[in-house]
Order: sequence, then C-alpha cells, then structure tokens
Amino acid sequence: MSEPVEKSENLPDASAGKGVPNGGNSAKTQEDFDLATIYVSDAQYNRNIYFDTSPQAVRLYLLYNHWVFKVLLYFFILVNLSLAVFEEPALVSLPTWATMLVELLCLLVFSVRLAHYAKVIPRDKFWKDPKNICIIVVLLLTLTDMIIYGGLKAANCYSVRWSRVLRPLLLINVTEGRQLRRAFRSIRNALPEISYVFVLFIFSVLIFSLMALKLLSKRGLKTIEGTPYFTNYLEIVFELYVLVTTANSPDVMMPAYNKSSVFAIFFILYILINTYIFMSVFLAVVFNNYKKYLKEEIQQLVRAKRHKMARAFGVLQEQKEGGQPVVSHENWNKLVRQVRPNISNAHKELLWRVCDDNNQGFIGKVAFVQLADLLNIEVITLKSRPHPLESLIPNLYQSRPSRLLCRVVQHRGFVIAFDLIILVNAVFIGLDEENPLISNSEWFFLAIYVLEILLKLYVFEPRAFFSKHSFWNWFDTIVVFAALIATIINSALKSSGGYTSRQVLDIVFILRVLRLIRVVDRIERFRAIINTLIRIGPAILTFGQLILVVYYIFAMVGMELFKNKVKFYEDLSNPESTYFTHKSALIFFVLFHVLVVIIIINIFVAFVLEAFFVEYSLGKGDLQTSLERKIEELELAVAQEKLEDNLVNAMETIDNDLGTGQSPTANLPTLLFKVASKRYRTVDALLQRMFEADLDPEDFAENDIPEDQTGNFANPTFATA
Amino acid sequence: MSEPVEKSENLPDASAGKGVPNGGNSAKTQEDFDLATIYVSDAQYNRNIYFDTSPQAVRLYLLYNHWVFKVLLYFFILVNLSLAVFEEPALVSLPTWATMLVELLCLLVFSVRLAHYAKVIPRDKFWKDPKNICIIVVLLLTLTDMIIYGGLKAANCYSVRWSRVLRPLLLINVTEGRQLRRAFRSIRNALPEISYVFVLFIFSVLIFSLMALKLLSKRGLKTIEGTPYFTNYLEIVFELYVLVTTANSPDVMMPAYNKSSVFAIFFILYILINTYIFMSVFLAVVFNNYKKYLKEEIQQLVRAKRHKMARAFGVLQEQKEGGQPVVSHENWNKLVRQVRPNISNAHKELLWRVCDDNNQGFIGKVAFVQLADLLNIEVITLKSRPHPLESLIPNLYQSRPSRLLCRVVQHRGFVIAFDLIILVNAVFIGLDEENPLISNSEWFFLAIYVLEILLKLYVFEPRAFFSKHSFWNWFDTIVVFAALIATIINSALKSSGGYTSRQVLDIVFILRVLRLIRVVDRIERFRAIINTLIRIGPAILTFGQLILVVYYIFAMVGMELFKNKVKFYEDLSNPESTYFTHKSALIFFVLFHVLVVIIIINIFVAFVLEAFFVEYSLGKGDLQTSLERKIEELELAVAQEKLEDNLVNAMETIDNDLGTGQSPTANLPTLLFKVASKRYRTVDALLQRMFEADLDPEDFAENDIPEDQTGNFANPTFATA
Repeated sequence: MSEPVEKSENLPDASAGKGVPNGGNSAKTQEDFDLATIYVSDAQYNRNIYFDTSPQAVRLYLLYNHWVFKVLLYFFILVNLSLAVFEEPALVSLPTWATMLVELLCLLVFSVRLAHYAKVIPRDKFWKDPKNICIIVVLLLTLTDMIIYGGLKAANCYSVRWSRVLRPLLLINVTEGRQLRRAFRSIRNALPEISYVFVLFIFSVLIFSLMALKLLSKRGLKTIEGTPYFTNYLEIVFELYVLVTTANSPDVMMPAYNKSSVFAIFFILYILINTYIFMSVFLAVVFNNYKKYLKEEIQQLVRAKRHKMARAFGVLQEQKEGGQPVVSHENWNKLVRQVRPNISNAHKELLWRVCDDNNQGFIGKVAFVQLADLLNIEVITLKSRPHPLESLIPNLYQSRPSRLLCRVVQHRGFVIAFDLIILVNAVFIGLDEENPLISNSEWFFLAIYVLEILLKLYVFEPRAFFSKHSFWNWFDTIVVFAALIATIINSALKSSGGYTSRQVLDIVFILRVLRLIRVVDRIERFRAIINTLIRIGPAILTFGQLILVVYYIFAMVGMELFKNKVKFYEDLSNPESTYFTHKSALIFFVLFHVLVVIIIINIFVAFVLEAFFVEYSLGKGDLQTSLERKIEELELAVAQEKLEDNLVNAMETIDNDLGTGQSPTANLPTLLFKVASKRYRTVDALLQRMFEADLDPEDFAENDIPEDQTGNFANPTFATA
Repeated sequence: MSEPVEKSENLPDASAGKGVPNGGNSAKTQEDFDLATIYVSDAQYNRNIYFDTSPQAVRLYLLYNHWVFKVLLYFFILVNLSLAVFEEPALVSLPTWATMLVELLCLLVFSVRLAHYAKVIPRDKFWKDPKNICIIVVLLLTLTDMIIYGGLKAANCYSVRWSRVLRPLLLINVTEGRQLRRAFRSIRNALPEISYVFVLFIFSVLIFSLMALKLLSKRGLKTIEGTPYFTNYLEIVFELYVLVTTANSPDVMMPAYNKSSVFAIFFILYILINTYIFMSVFLAVVFNNYKKYLKEEIQQLVRAKRHKMARAFGVLQEQKEGGQPVVSHENWNKLVRQVRPNISNAHKELLWRVCDDNNQGFIGKVAFVQLADLLNIEVITLKSRPHPLESLIPNLYQSRPSRLLCRVVQHRGFVIAFDLIILVNAVFIGLDEENPLISNSEWFFLAIYVLEILLKLYVFEPRAFFSKHSFWNWFDTIVVFAALIATIINSALKSSGGYTSRQVLDIVFILRVLRLIRVVDRIERFRAIINTLIRIGPAILTFGQLILVVYYIFAMVGMELFKNKVKFYEDLSNPESTYFTHKSALIFFVLFHVLVVIIIINIFVAFVLEAFFVEYSLGKGDLQTSLERKIEELELAVAQEKLEDNLVNAMETIDNDLGTGQSPTANLPTLLFKVASKRYRTVDALLQRMFEADLDPEDFAENDIPEDQTGNFANPTFATA
C-alpha cells in the first residue's frame, strides 16, 4: 500500500464521516470531540477496534465500551463456564432444562453483544476478523449440540455434550480478551522451537527407558506394592517421564537402588539430564521466544497507539498562520475533560504545561500524541486541606495536649510500637485460643487496633487517609473492623446458645492472621519486592485466565473420557487411581503436563523474570521524568525530605496525608503533585515500559505499518487502516 | 597508584629479572622466550599467577604448570575426599591406621605442592593470598585433628573426626580451581539480594502456616497414617515448606480437602504464591546478580589477559626505525613454536598472516595481543591426502567397482539406510532377548555396524576419519567394537559353562542402547541443540564440583549428627525415616534445601539460560571472523558447497574426511583450513564470548585496573601488579 492511499484512508476518512469539511480554523462540533475522545481513550487503553466514524456508529461505540456492558459480558461468560459444575456428572445437580435454559440465555447475550459490535465496525471488517467468525461458529455449534442433546435425551438415548469444550473459546475471543490472545500467540510462536527440544527430550527419555528395560526387567525386582518392577517398556517410559517432575521420586528408584547402589548412577544421570538440563533448556527457549515476539507485538501496539493519537489530532487540528497544524488550549481542555470527566483542574493544567512547554497557547502533533501516555501516568494531587476538626473545634484541636498527641502519632516510635504489638499478637494467635486469657486478649488487641485507626484519623485529614492510593490504610481499616464485627457476632452466638459457628470463627481467624501482613510494608527492601509483585499482579491474572482455559478444556475432555470409569477405592480423591484405568489416560496426563508445565508455567516464569529484570535495569520512563521535571519547575513538588521527615515510616501508604494544619508543611503551596511512579494502570503499560527504549518518539506509524505485519495483531483490521 | 609507577613495576621488572638490558634490537635469549611463552600460555588459559621473573623461578613455574603435577594433585584431592567411604561409619570398612596413613600422604602432597607454589611467586605475594593461608590452616587443622583423634582412639575415648568437613576447601583453594571459586563468588555476591526475598518468602510461609493452624488444628483431622493433622505449628511450617518443593503434594492437603473442598483454595493460593511466584523471583534475583557480577569478573579476566600479552610483547619487542616497538616474524615463530610445540607449520603461517595483515614482516602490540585468542580458536587443518590403499593397490582402488562403492558410501541414501537399520535395531533391543531369533539378530546388527565402519574406512582417509574432532566416528567405532568384544565374551561364557555374567551382559546392553544415540546427530536442528549442550558441558562440571563440595560438607555434618540415631525399619533406605528423629534434623534439611535448590540450582539454571541466550543472539566472535576472512583470502577455505554436496549427511562428524583421491575435491589445494567454531577449549572462552562485546580491543589494561577492583579476583596479587 503506498503512502498517499494510506493517508487518504486515515485522516480524511475521519472528517468525512461527520459530513463537515474540516480545514482551516473552523469551530469543532460536539461530534468532533466525541470522535477525538474515542481515539484518545482507545489509545489510552490500547483498544484496537476499527470503528465506523459516522456519528451514530461513534455513539454506539461509546455504548459498546461502557463498563456496565463489559462487566455483564464477563459475568455471563463466567456463568456459562461455571455451568459445568451443575451439569451431569454434576457436583451440584440441577435439572437439564435449567442448565440448558441458562446456557441459552448466555448464548443470547453473546449474540447481542456480537450484533452490537457488528453495528460499530464496517461490515467488511467484521467478516474479515477471525475472532468474530470463531464466536459465530462456537455459538452455532453449541446451539446444534444443545438441540441434538435435548432430542436424544428426550428419546432416552446416550449422548455427549461435546460443545462444552468450546466454551473457553468465547473467553478468548471476546474483543476485550487482548492480553489472553497475546499470551496464546506467545505460545503459538514458541511452539516450533519448543517442539525440537521436546522431541530431543522425549528421545532421551526413550533411550533411558530402553536402558532401564534391559538392565532391570530381568532381575525380578518388585515395587513396594509388590507388582513387577520395570518390566513393561511403556510403563517405564511413563514412570521416567513422571520422574522428570520429581513426583514419584525417590519411590521409582528404590527397588533398583536396594538391589545395587550402582543403579543410583543411572537415576542421577537421568535426573541431571532430563530434569535439570532439559527443563532449563525449555525455559531458555520459551523465554527467548517470548521476549522476541512480545517485543515485536508491543512495538506494534505502541505504533498503533500513536497512530490513533495522530487521528485524534487530525480531527481537532487547526491551521496556524505558520501553516503548522496545531490544537488550541481551549479544544485540548475540552477534549481532556471529555476523556476523563473527573480530572481535577490542577491536574489538567499540569498536563497542559507539560505538553505546551513554551507557553504558546497551542500544541503541535508531537506534543499532542503524548497525551494518551500522560493520562496513564497517575499523578496524585495532594491538597493540603485543614483537618475538619480544626474548623469545627479550632481551640481544642490547636491546644497543647492535642498538638502533643499529633506529634506522638507522627513519631516513628508510634509505628515501631505498633509493629511490636503486631508481633506479640502473632504469638497470641499461635497459642491455644481455648485458654480464656488468650481468647480475651483478642478484645484487647482489637481495641488497640481500633484506637490506632482513630488516632490516625484524628491526626491526618480523613479524605487523604482514605484516598485511592492509600492501599494499606484501606486494608488495615477493613481488616480490623471486619474482625471486630465477626468477633462480636461470634461471641454473641456463643453467649446466646453456647453455640460457635465454624464459618464465623474461620473468618475471624483469617482476618486476624491477615492483620499481621502489614508488618512487611514497614521495611523498604520488602516493600520494593512487594511492589514489583503487585505490579505484575494483573498480568498474573492473564496467566490465570490462560490456565483456566486449558484446565477447563482438559477437565471437559477428561470428564467425558473417564466418567464412570474411575473406581474409587478407600481414599476417595487420590488421583492416582485414574492412572491405571486405561492406557490412553496416560497420554491424556502427559499431554496435560506438557502443555501446562512445560509451556504455560515456563511462559509464566519468563514473564516474571522479564518483569524483574526491567525493574532492576530500568529507571522511570522518559515521559514520567518530563512530567516530574515540570512538577518541580512549577514548584509544586512535594518537598521530599519534609515528607520523609514527617511520615518516614508510613511513606507510600500515607504519602498524601499532609492535611494536618499544624504540621511543618503548612507553609507549602496548597496544591501538591506527586507522580505515583510505582503504579501502572494496565498490563500494557508495564509491557510498553519494557520495550519502549527501542522506539523513536517521532514515529507516528501513519504509513509505516507494512501490510504483512498486521497478521500478528489482535484485531488485524486496525493496523491496515 | 599512578601510571608511571604501574609501568615501572610491569615491563622493566620482566627484563630486569633476567639481568639483560633489553633496549633496541638486541637478540633475544632463550630465557626471554621462556618468559614470553609463560606469559602467552598464562594468557591463553587465563592463569592469574604473579610468578617471579628470575630464570630459575620461571623454570620452576613451568614445572608447576606441568600437566602431570596437576593430574597428580587432583588425584590426591579425590583420594582425600573419597576417604570418607572407608572411614567409620564406613561403607567399605578399612582399619583406622590405613585411612590415616593415606590421609597423611595426601597432606604431604598438598604441602609439597604449596611449597612449590611458594618458590614460584614472591614471598610477600604468597602471604597476602587468602587462598594459601586457607590451605595452610586446613592442613594444620587436619593434622591436629588426626593427632587428637589418634590419641583418643588409642585411649578408647569417644572422638569425632571434625576436620573432614574441611576437605572440600582444598578442592576450592588449589590454584587451579578458578571456575569453582568464581561460582562461589557468584553465590556470595547474590546472597544479600536473595536473603531479602528469602525472608519475605519465609514470612509468607509462616503466615500461611499460622492460618492453617487456626483453620485446621481444631477439626480433629487425621493424616492417612492416622496421626493428628496440622496441630503443631512447627510441623505445619515444615510440611508447608516441603510443599513448596511439591514433594509431599498432594498428600499434605488430602485430609483438609476431604473435610471440605473449600480448603483447596487455601492450598492453591499457597502453591501459586510460594512455589510459582517466589521461586520465579528467586530465579530472577539469582540470574540478575549472576549476570551482573560475572560480567564484571570476566571483563577483568580479559583485561588481565591483555595485560599478560602486553608483557610478553614487552619481553620480545624490538625498536623499529620509526620508533614503534614491534615483534619480528622470526621471534614470533619461535615463540609460537614454544607455546604450542605440536602446531603445524601451515597453521602457524595462517596465524601470522592474520596478525601481519599488511605483510610487513613484523607486528605491533595490538596485533600481537590477539595471539592468545587466536591460539584458542581451533583450526582444523584438512590435508587432502590420498587414501593409503590408493598408493598400495592403485589399480584396484581406482577400478570401476571400487569407485562405484565409494560413491554408494558417500551417497545420502547410505546414511538414511543406516538410520533405518538403527531404528529396526531399537525395536529388536526392546523385544525379549530370550527369544533365540532376537538374541541371534544381535550378531547380524553387529556385523552390519562393523561393515559400515570398514566401508567408511575404505572410502575415507583413515587418519582423517579418526581425527581429533570426529567425535561421532570415535564414538561409533568404540561403541561397536566394545559391544562386539563384550558379546563374544558373553557367548563364550554362556557356551563354556552355561553361565551368564550379569555384569558383562549389562555392559552389552548399555553399549547396544548407546549405539542408538547417533541418530540424533543426523538432524541439523537437534545437532544445534546438542552442540550447545556439549559446549556448556565443562561449565556443568564446575557446577558438579560446587554441588560435590556442598553435598560433601552436608554429608559429613549429617553423618556426625545423625549416626546411630537413624533406625532402619522395613524399607532400608527410605530417607524419610530420618525426618522424625529429631527437631534439629528439620533445620538441617531445610538448610540443605535452601542452599542446594534455591541458590545452586538457580545459579545453574541461570548459567544454562545465559548460555542459550548467547547462542541465540551472538554470531561468531570478531576474531574468529577475521581468521575465517584470512582463510578465504588465502583461498584455503574448504569449498563449503562441495563439502556439503559430498558429505551432506555426515557434516561435522566427518568434515575432514576429504581424503578420497577420486572425489571431486581432488583438484583443490592440498591444504585446507576450517575454523572449528563450534568448539571452545575452555569455559572461560565461552564466558568471554558472552561479554566480549563490551570491551575495547585497544584496552591493554596496563594501567587501568583500579586498586579496589582487585578484591574480586581469583588471585588478587596479579591484578595489582
């Protein structure tokens, strides 16, 4: 595709859609802002949907992206997946008509959602997207299966609900499942390399098994259960494969070792080669592939983001005298207010000053394109509001005892004292709670914790204390008050009828133990590690979905294959009983192990490794630094030393608790900013940070996405646009 | 230390040692060459010994580096370590006086070796090196312990041979244990970072254990053995710690799961956080530290190497008219012949042409410094010698049937045919060998394999076929002929007395199975993976030593702690019996697990990962490429296509088998070179290749090693010199 064609398809397309010629300094309509808003928020959240730019399609698209509909969609996907629990062979049995009815409702919801999507994007784009085709096929197949199953059931024939295996595909293919699809593409891309190593690994297992067969089968050895040891080749292969996971170690080698300790050499060599070396090689191959392809994908994602921002710029641009297209401060303000309605004026002004570095009153394309990333940087606005008690009872709040109390609570000794109390509490929890002294001590600890929170609320401004980023304050308060309520309920139950509810008690115990966690946050090194872990949390959820999909499919297949075939002996849930049911079961389990352990776990480890390496090697992103520079320039930065001085032991957790009127910070400007550099809003932001170093900031991707690369994209239609 | 002082300490020191003023074009004495030779070979093998430069010290140093003494040293270290098998509580009991005598002999050998070393290096350097102090202390402590033990034993008192724990320290601290010391330094450097994560991990285990105690201890659950389940806090901590290794999964969670499936959530959460996330974080931390410090160390190693080469240059340099110090071709030749006596003239000439790119007859410092690396690149000299049969019976060998035979053997179909035979053989091996048909078929297969080798020897020049680098040819021949001999012995034994020796039969079986391995080498992708594995083989040996040291120390401590305390029940070698002997045993096992699994295994995995990443990302080293360019320039390169054409299926294995007179390569020059790029002589070479990209080739490290960095060095005395 040549450059001019590309251009003509992009920007003019956007303006053509609303029917207004968009040259010169013409005033922008509400529809212009709607369109630009969509482009910016698509860029911000990396949505790659090629929507129609006509006003009604834009309005439909806004509706499509509404969080209520997304939550509803995920709710129905969850309902659809969890139907397996109620279907035969069921854990909780429900009549067939009930589950079928619920499933029909789910199918209906998915169809409506898809129809909505079809209205938003152009028809030809809709039919070119394999995601949509896949959803339609799954819906149709499920419907067919339900009809057949219902019919056969009515005729009392044997039938299998085979379409249940397809359910997780809906989770993958809904438009919002971007990360999940990316993880699946990672796997697909790594497969060829992995398969070579895997064949070699299997060859090694086969050779070792053959050697074991020749060396051990004729010695008449017996396993601990008394069955012949290592006499069947396929059994040896399976046993040695399991040995790689160390699940049957050392049992599997004991008979040979008891015969002669020389055989230990055989097993040591086997474990060294297959468990340690081959498993490391798997990790290396997966890691390498993961990095390589992910990097490519993320770079394309960043290009697409800039492309969308350039489109938004195209919609809002005006022609300056110099001939340079620009966006005026006024239009920019209106746009930002529409993109993020709840943004504070101060924050908006700060962002504008970052963009309009020279105070010109308008910004060019390069500055405009930053906006999506700037909006993704969380800036904490610290308002040094006076404490409400100060306005209510100024004399009392400013009195000498009150000020002394504030100083005590802000002192690091206060924090240390509470750490010690938590440790003592931990010992008391560990002791036997049937001792009346111990069980009564719980009331004492609860009172102490409640007192702590009340004191803090007295000293620090309550709205700041319970601000959005004060994770540990929220955590503390919720855990302490929940424990208080649960303990009260528990003793009420106990004293009323001498009856103790196990469930309530369990909750009380869990809450009590959870209280101890907060000690970790007090030590800076631990906080750094935990912050990294929290940061990769959302990504771990993606892997959770991935594993859910694989487990679900295997569970469904396994259920149909092995139902009524597994005999339960004494130990009801010992999964080993299934192993010996059938030869094909072995294949099923090996396949499961290969997929989950060798591929998914390794990709997970690769992700954690990469995230930690990025943490170790990278400072803050360039954009973040420029924002911080601007904050400093404007003298709006929180004086870091003063902050540390006051709240040294409660740093990040209550770093916006400057609201005490009598603190030394009273003479600072009333508005302070702080970049919450340690938080990322989206998984993509973390990934982009990983790879952003290789990208040129001037690259708007308007005409440099080659046609052949678009196949890699989640939504291939956008990149070609 | 200022620059001039550094210089005055370095080069003039070298010339001062031999008492001859070394300016201008003075002729070089044999002592000059001896000294230069030592510098070059020290650089080549990365020895960092600051030896005295007086002629007698140089001669002693040459003797010190002689391979016979090194082998002897390692032999006695091995004898010393293996004494544990014969000492009480012994596997093979020997009288105390015998083991003590052997140990005394070992101590004597180590003392002599240390005295030799003391003669080689200056006295003050000797006493500053902690390695030497450590060896002396170990020797003295061992002697003291032996005297006390002997005395107490004679007086029939109870005594402990505690100094046995120190034995592995000798393995670490002998001058040659460079890689091992580096690995230990890696661990030491990673420890602070790891300890933070470890404390957090233990905190997590403790919190989960506390929760498990509160939730499960009062429910009166029983384990499968009928003992109370999860009632003791320390036991829970230990069980959950073991669960991290998945060794007691799923047994440990079964009682809780049987009570209520809701508890599965607890265990899943536990395994997710502690097994998957924390173990990945451990790997990330270890990997990151490993990379960081190893890189620094290797860069210092490369600097030290260049420094040594610059010293060698200083000894041999002459003043050219221009004023530039140079080394003449003549002196260079003499040096190379002394450094590597068995180098071929052709190879030497090739190296000279690489160094002296402009054919000037002398080389400067930069070109000279390359020599150590050039000598480390293996160049295979391919002599297109005529087949000996061609000279013996030219008419017969050149006859039409003979030439047809040669073509058949060289055809790829021949190789494929033998691959198929190997596969059929694999099936036959798997079948029951008591069937007479099967057992007789072995003779057929042996005959076929012998025929294959004979045919190849007929077609290819035998010396080329059995050249140093033809690993698979050697492997094949040894395995096939060993199997032939063993099978003959076996049937001789059988037919003579009807008696089958189990040992001989075992060897026959192992050899038969080993024969199958060669199939792997036929597929290029597999060969690449296997080559990487072979390349990291020597490094794995280093990790083997590391693990040996740790295991030995733990085994010794464990033996003394638990001897006579372990009761053996039915199952003689079930190690679990020891667990329950004593509380302190738990600490011992946890410590062992932390050290071996969390640290050493992770460093091993980190090494394998890094080696594979280097393989994936790096091409050949710069120096290698320049050598290859020169080979091509001189038209001495093996015409790659012809090689491939002829021997496509036996490429690397017989890549110097061009000796057939009648092959199409007959009109090539009689001397061909090929860079054996896939082989590294030393582990250091591989590591250097990993990090060489960051080093400036002009950096001779003569005066830029800061004093404070030398602490990292294996032999700190050299770097300060």
